[in-house]
Amino acid sequence: MSAIAAAGLACPVPIAAADRVQLGHGSGGKMSASLIGGLFVRALGNPALDEMSDGAVVTAGATDLVVSTDSFVVSPLEFPGGDIGSLAVHGTLNDLAMMGARPLCLTAGFVLEEGLPIDLLGRLVASMAAAARLARVPIVAGDTKVVERGKADGLYVNTTGVGLLHPHCRPGPRGARPGDVVIVSGAVGRHGMAIMAAREGLEFESTITSDSACLVPLVERLAACGASVHAMRDPTRGGVASALNEIAAASGVEVVLDEDALPVPENVRAACEMLGLDPLYVANEGILLAIVPGADAPRALDALRSHELGAGAVTIARVTDAPAARVVLRTTLGSSRIVDLLPGDQLPRIC
Amino acid sequence: MSAIAAAGLACPVPIAAADRVQLGHGSGGKMSASLIGGLFVRALGNPALDEMSDGAVVTAGATDLVVSTDSFVVSPLEFPGGDIGSLAVHGTLNDLAMMGARPLCLTAGFVLEEGLPIDLLGRLVASMAAAARLARVPIVAGDTKVVERGKADGLYVNTTGVGLLHPHCRPGPRGARPGDVVIVSGAVGRHGMAIMAAREGLEFESTITSDSACLVPLVERLAACGASVHAMRDPTRGGVASALNEIAAASGVEVVLDEDALPVPENVRAACEMLGLDPLYVANEGILLAIVPGADAPRALDALRSHELGAGAVTIARVTDAPAARVVLRTTLGSSRIVDLLPGDQLPRIC
Repeated sequence: MSAIAAAGLACPVPIAAADRVQLGHGSGGKMSASLIGGLFVRALGNPALDEMSDGAVVTAGATDLVVSTDSFVVSPLEFPGGDIGSLAVHGTLNDLAMMGARPLCLTAGFVLEEGLPIDLLGRLVASMAAAARLARVPIVAGDTKVVERGKADGLYVNTTGVGLLHPHCRPGPRGARPGDVVIVSGAVGRHGMAIMAAREGLEFESTITSDSACLVPLVERLAACGASVHAMRDPTRGGVASALNEIAAASGVEVVLDEDALPVPENVRAACEMLGLDPLYVANEGILLAIVPGADAPRALDALRSHELGAGAVTIARVTDAPAARVVLRTTLGSSRIVDLLPGDQLPRIC
Repeated sequence: MSAIAAAGLACPVPIAAADRVQLGHGSGGKMSASLIGGLFVRALGNPALDEMSDGAVVTAGATDLVVSTDSFVVSPLEFPGGDIGSLAVHGTLNDLAMMGARPLCLTAGFVLEEGLPIDLLGRLVASMAAAARLARVPIVAGDTKVVERGKADGLYVNTTGVGLLHPHCRPGPRGARPGDVVIVSGAVGRHGMAIMAAREGLEFESTITSDSACLVPLVERLAACGASVHAMRDPTRGGVASALNEIAAASGVEVVLDEDALPVPENVRAACEMLGLDPLYVANEGILLAIVPGADAPRALDALRSHELGAGAVTIARVTDAPAARVVLRTTLGSSRIVDLLPGDQLPRIC
């Protein structure tokens, strides 16, 4: 249901029948894990879902498939660098890619609000189509429902993807080992701050654009370069901090993050400071974290940098032999602090 | 996108960029076909989607898969005979079954409204789990988003299913031929009128319950009985009238429906009369229409009646050799009239 939950962090915040759903339950943080572990997995539990991921491996005859689903409720519907249409394509393709799958097809399920302008819907569907064409993955089936005015925020869209499991690149979050390093494929914090700036009408010297992109080509280059990819994640909701916490918990290792190495663009840093946000927790939609043995880092970096999406790839962290499943930040000032999951929401409706 | 559109009825009502989405665009009638043909398929078009169905056949290695997606926005969330949770499981399993697929797995994508009571969510997810367990199909992946109070009507859920294409039962809507008969597996109009009665607070002598059910066992018995199933549909949005129009148009045949033979329960008939609705257009969620050669009808009826869901199976129509793609109703009074698609909505948010 959420990658976070794979970290074994089920129910850090108890959930009670008398409670009501709060925005924080959709944050990708501790409250999400609580709702998912305490309610969804308890009811729906089965071996595949017990992995508690938004993707699962399913055997169909002689073929190993990966299936992944994601609903998109981002507000605003259009933002610098993307829109809900292309985001919905990229998001699910990236989930498949992070599980080591080659995408075969997508489906699209729309909930439209009465009154939505047809020209806006047309732009969003065209953007979706362009993203799917660029990735060479067809949208093979769809569904449209309409609800009354005021009962959806323009539109929501679900995309579900089916892919073929890669024969020898099956990373997931569990394989990180002492001696590994963490590579990020590009700048951190762009998507979340592009959404916030658009939503709040903030202006900076340069417009912050979302990094929304399909990561399939990057994963293919990584798989082909010969580096042993122990774990892989796209740091979406909850950002780099949450993705690394998930990997640390699932692999049972300590990850030490180097603040100086983190590639945060100047305009993202300025926006975060203005809004009191930490770029480590800001959502990304077009970068990946690859965990590889230290000795393989040069070839992995070369492979990523050979594609325009990975031109800014750098090493940001290392996996230590400390017997602790946690993420530690070595700050610019030389101090250290634990980087935990957020309890609830930093930025609601970011994807 | 909609089974209706498969009838080749693309854009009967023109759609313009200056228009806005209306409730009728989600009806499964002519306005739906217009939105789907005029906007979605034009943008997203590819060979699989050009079939314009909510399901598609996809080849994965050596395996032929069927993929189908459906979003559920039914109001109220709980109603006599079912709820949005079990309905979302049945709806997508039935779409797979109607394409001749054996379901392998489902995914579930939730959009939750802030303030939704956790105990209600718990009941709906438990109902979903029970329906999936009964059908022996696991829900393998999920996703949860939360939107602000007032921006969803409790919750919306998308289910997407993957199935294996049946080696020799691949009905679809195109195979009806002169001499065939149309069998309905049970009573008509229950789901739609159960929703309407619950929504409007109507009381009848007996409560109308939804027929929401998984049709996979019925399809298995049909496939095993030796009858040649030329076409098959579950008459959901738009009811029996729309499903038969689709089959008539896709197969290029005339279907003559016998009003006297139509199994409409007394309480459904009374509710329809009170509200001025035609049971032919009312949604069903637990019956199927099977089109078989006249000579195969007895064994098909026996096969359906051998399962409790098909106990009320009867022949309701025949396919003539008239060179017209249309549906004609022979009324109780002996007259005939054309049964066309509705332009827009009879009952919004029925599924």
